Amino acid sequence: MTHNSTMNNSAAQTLKNIPIYEITSQESIEVIHQTSLTILNNLGMAFYDQQALDLLASHGARVDGEMVYFSPEMVEEYVAKAPAEFTQISRNPARGVRIGGKNTVFAPVYGPPFVYDLKKGRRLASIQDFENFVKLAYLSPYMHHSGGTIVEPNDLPVKSRHLDMLLAHILYSDKPFMGSVTSPENARDSIEMVRILFGSEEISKNPALLSLISINSPRQFDGGMLGALREYAQANQATLITPFILAGMMSPVTIAGALAQQNAEVLAGIIYAQAVNPGAPVIYGSFMTTVDMQSGSLVFGSPESQIALLAGASLARKYNLPFRSGGMFASSKLTDAQAAYESVMTMLPAIFGNVQFVLHAAGWLENGMTTGYEKFLLDCDFLGAMITLAKGLEVSQDSLAMNAIQEVAPGEHFLETEHTMDHFRTAFYRTQLMDYEDFEQWEAQGGLDATQRASQRVDYLLSIYQQPELDLAIKEGLEDFVLKRKQELETKVFS
Amino acid sequence: MTHNSTMNNSAAQTLKNIPIYEITSQESIEVIHQTSLTILNNLGMAFYDQQALDLLASHGARVDGEMVYFSPEMVEEYVAKAPAEFTQISRNPARGVRIGGKNTVFAPVYGPPFVYDLKKGRRLASIQDFENFVKLAYLSPYMHHSGGTIVEPNDLPVKSRHLDMLLAHILYSDKPFMGSVTSPENARDSIEMVRILFGSEEISKNPALLSLISINSPRQFDGGMLGALREYAQANQATLITPFILAGMMSPVTIAGALAQQNAEVLAGIIYAQAVNPGAPVIYGSFMTTVDMQSGSLVFGSPESQIALLAGASLARKYNLPFRSGGMFASSKLTDAQAAYESVMTMLPAIFGNVQFVLHAAGWLENGMTTGYEKFLLDCDFLGAMITLAKGLEVSQDSLAMNAIQEVAPGEHFLETEHTMDHFRTAFYRTQLMDYEDFEQWEAQGGLDATQRASQRVDYLLSIYQQPELDLAIKEGLEDFVLKRKQELETKVFS
Repeated sequence: MTHNSTMNNSAAQTLKNIPIYEITSQESIEVIHQTSLTILNNLGMAFYDQQALDLLASHGARVDGEMVYFSPEMVEEYVAKAPAEFTQISRNPARGVRIGGKNTVFAPVYGPPFVYDLKKGRRLASIQDFENFVKLAYLSPYMHHSGGTIVEPNDLPVKSRHLDMLLAHILYSDKPFMGSVTSPENARDSIEMVRILFGSEEISKNPALLSLISINSPRQFDGGMLGALREYAQANQATLITPFILAGMMSPVTIAGALAQQNAEVLAGIIYAQAVNPGAPVIYGSFMTTVDMQSGSLVFGSPESQIALLAGASLARKYNLPFRSGGMFASSKLTDAQAAYESVMTMLPAIFGNVQFVLHAAGWLENGMTTGYEKFLLDCDFLGAMITLAKGLEVSQDSLAMNAIQEVAPGEHFLETEHTMDHFRTAFYRTQLMDYEDFEQWEAQGGLDATQRASQRVDYLLSIYQQPELDLAIKEGLEDFVLKRKQELETKVFS
Repeated sequence: MTHNSTMNNSAAQTLKNIPIYEITSQESIEVIHQTSLTILNNLGMAFYDQQALDLLASHGARVDGEMVYFSPEMVEEYVAKAPAEFTQISRNPARGVRIGGKNTVFAPVYGPPFVYDLKKGRRLASIQDFENFVKLAYLSPYMHHSGGTIVEPNDLPVKSRHLDMLLAHILYSDKPFMGSVTSPENARDSIEMVRILFGSEEISKNPALLSLISINSPRQFDGGMLGALREYAQANQATLITPFILAGMMSPVTIAGALAQQNAEVLAGIIYAQAVNPGAPVIYGSFMTTVDMQSGSLVFGSPESQIALLAGASLARKYNLPFRSGGMFASSKLTDAQAAYESVMTMLPAIFGNVQFVLHAAGWLENGMTTGYEKFLLDCDFLGAMITLAKGLEVSQDSLAMNAIQEVAPGEHFLETEHTMDHFRTAFYRTQLMDYEDFEQWEAQGGLDATQRASQRVDYLLSIYQQPELDLAIKEGLEDFVLKRKQELETKVFS
C-alpha cells in the first residue's frame, strides 16, 4: 500500500489490446436481431410524447395512438445514421474521451439516494457527499469520467439541484461529465452550461455532454425522457439509451427473450434520436440483471446477467454502435466479500466483451440505493487492474527475455538480472489498497481489512485534493447562470 | 439465502457450452513455443534423480551431469504420446470426472498449514479440520473433486499423515481425490490404497489418482517429485505437472518470458512421464503469479497473472493437452472484500479460457498459507455461478419468448405469463450465501455480512453431513493397510 499524491495524471479512455470475446455464434445473434425486428414491426413501442409521435410518423413509422411501429427497412436506415465512434470533449483537452472502437471509458455510479461509510454508516446523501465523490473521481487515475448523479444531493431543492450538480462537476473536476435528463428544461440548462464552458461552436462539433436516457421496459418511453433525448440530439450532444430490465419482471425470464426485447427498445430510441438529428451521437445501452424469482428481490452479479452483457455487446457490434454495460454492481449492503464477488463478476466480462462505456464503474452498493465511500476507492483500485489486463500480452524479443533465462542457473532467482532491473518498476500493476504484508506484519499494523484501509484513504485523498484551475470569466458566467436559473425556478409554479 | 439439505447431488465435471477466449494471436503463441524449444535444447533442465537421467538418456535426450537437453524432435514425439483427455474414476461411478475437452473440474485448495474461521481465528490445522473440509467439499454440488492436502493435519506425524488424509478422502467422500507426492514411497502407498478400493485391473484402465507434481522453477526437478512422478506414471495414474512461478523471482519479470520458461519446464516433465510410460495421463499445469517488486511479497489476483493464465491455456491447446490453472486465490488474510476481488479475478478468466482442471477452487486465503472455512463456502457458492455461466446462452423459439413479449402490454410485468410460470423455478442460479433482502429486512435480521452468514452455514452443513456408504470389506482392507504401514513407518529410521 503506497501513498503517492501524483494520482491525478490520468489518461483519457483505455485502449484495449486484447481480442474481443463472443459468447455466442453470429447465427444466434442474427436470430435475436430478427426477433427484435418482429417486435418493432408487429408489437411496437409506446411513446408518451406527442412531438415524438408526430416526428416519427413524419419519418415513416406507423403510429396508432401512443404506439409506434417500425418497419425493418426503417430500422436499418435510421440505425445506420448513428456514428460508430465519437469524442466527448472535456475542459482539460487531454481528458476528452473517445467512445467506440476498442476504447473503454469508466464512469462513477449514478443515482443512489444514500451514502455509506464505515464511520457514519448509511444515511441520505448531501451536496457535500456529491462534491466529495467528484473529487475522488478526479483524483483516481483509473476513472476516466466524472459521471452524473453520483449521489442525490438530498439537502438541495429538487427543482434546481441539477444546476448544483453540474456546477460541482465543472468546478471540482476537469473530466467529462453527464447532463440532467429529468425534463427537457433540465436538459436545456445542462446544454446552456456547457455552452458557457466551451462556446457554441465547440459543442456543436463534438458533444460536451453524455446523458442517460432510460427506457421504462417493457416497450415504453416516458415523456420527460423523450423530451430530454430530443433536446440533447438537437444540440448534437450524446445520449446513452438504456432499457432498465430486471429479467423475469420487465422482460421474459429467459435471457434470449430479454435480449430480443432490449434490442428492440434500444433501436427504437436510437431511431428517434436519428429522426431528430441524423448523426446525433448515441450509445447502445444495456442495464439488465435478474430477480430472485422466489422473493422478487433484485440480484446483481448473477451469471445470467453476464451472459446478457456479452451477447448485448455482440448485438451492438452488429449495428456498429458503441456499447454501454457492466459496472461494479453489488446487491450487498456492506463493502464485504459479497459486494466484491458481485462487482468483479459484472466488470471482468465487460473488458473481455469490449464494453465501451461502463457506467457505475465505482461505488455502487445495495442494488444502487447507496454509494459507498470505501467501495468507491476499492473499485477504482480494481479498475487499474482492468486497465492493465486490457493491455494484453506483449510478445517481443525483449519480453521473451532469453538473456535473463540463460543467465539464471536452475534454482537461482531472477531478481538481480539486468532484464529485471530494466523492467521491475513498470512490470506489474501496483494497487493502492490491497495488503500483501506477511501475516505477522499485517497483524502488527492493526490487522485492518480492505474496507478499513479504504476508509483511511478516503480521508487522505480528500485532504490532499486540489481544485483544477478554471478561467475566472467562465466560472463567473456559470455561477451567474446558475443563480439566475435558480431564481426563475423558485418562482415557477409546477403544473 | 436458503437452507436445503439436498446439496450432495452434484454432477461430475462441468461441460462448457461457451466459446474459448484466446488472449493473443496464434503467431504469438508460436513464438513462445519456439522460445521454449530453444530453452529445452540449449539451456536444458536439471533433473536431480539418477533413474530419471538414465531413462531420459536412453530415450535420446542429451544428458550432461544433472542437466538434460531435449531436441525439438524429441519434444514433439514425446509430448504427442500424452492423451488429450482422460477420466479419473471415483468410488461413486457417477462422480468420475472427465478431464480435457470443454470440461472443467473444480477441486479444493491444496497445501495450507493454517485454518481460519470467524469464531476461533487463525490456527494450525488438525486432522479434524481436514475431515471437516472433505465433508464440506462432499456436500457442495459445485465441487467436483475432493482434492488432496486441503489443510495439513499438523497434529499427526509427518511420516504417516498421507495415509490418514487418503483414508479421510475415501471414507468421508465419494468424489475423486489426489495422491501423495512427497516421496516415491508415499506415492506407492497412495497407489496401493486405490488398488484396495478399486482393484488392480480397474485402476490400470483409468486413473483413480491425480497427483500434483511441482517443478522448482527455474528449470529444476527435485528427486522426491521425480520419484513420485515415476511411480504414478508407471501405474498409469494421472499427474498434474506444474512449475511454481512467482514472475520476477523464479522467472523473467515479463510475462512472455515467464510463459516461455513455464512451457519448457512443463514439457520436460511431460516428456519424462511419457518416457516412463507412453500414454500416461498428464495435465499441463500452470501456477504463475507475480511478486510486488518493491517489497518482494506475493501478489494474487494480479492482472498480469490472468494474462499468463489465458496464454498458458492457449499453449496447452496447441499440444492438445488438458490444462490446469486458475483458482479462488487471495493474498488477503481475511474473508473480506480484498479476498473476493482477488478470487473472482483469478477464476472468471479460467472459465472463458477453458481451463480444464482448477485446483484451489475454494478456500484459499493468505497466499495459500491458510484455508478459510467461510471462504470455502463462499467460493463454492461462486463456483455454482461459474457453472451457470459456462452453460452460455440458449437461443430457441422457447427462450426467445415471443408469446410472452406479445402478451405483456407496455409498462406491465411478466411475472404472471405462462412462459414465466414454466421457467421461473430453473431460470436463474440460486445462491446459498448472498443476501438480497431490502435494507430494513436485512438490518432487522441482524445486518450480517457475507462471512458471518457463511460461518453459520459451516455449522449447519457439518451438522447435517452424512457419511456415504462404503463396502465393509473394502473399508477394513484400507484400515488394515493404513495400520500396517503406520507400524512400518514408525520403526523406519530416515537416513
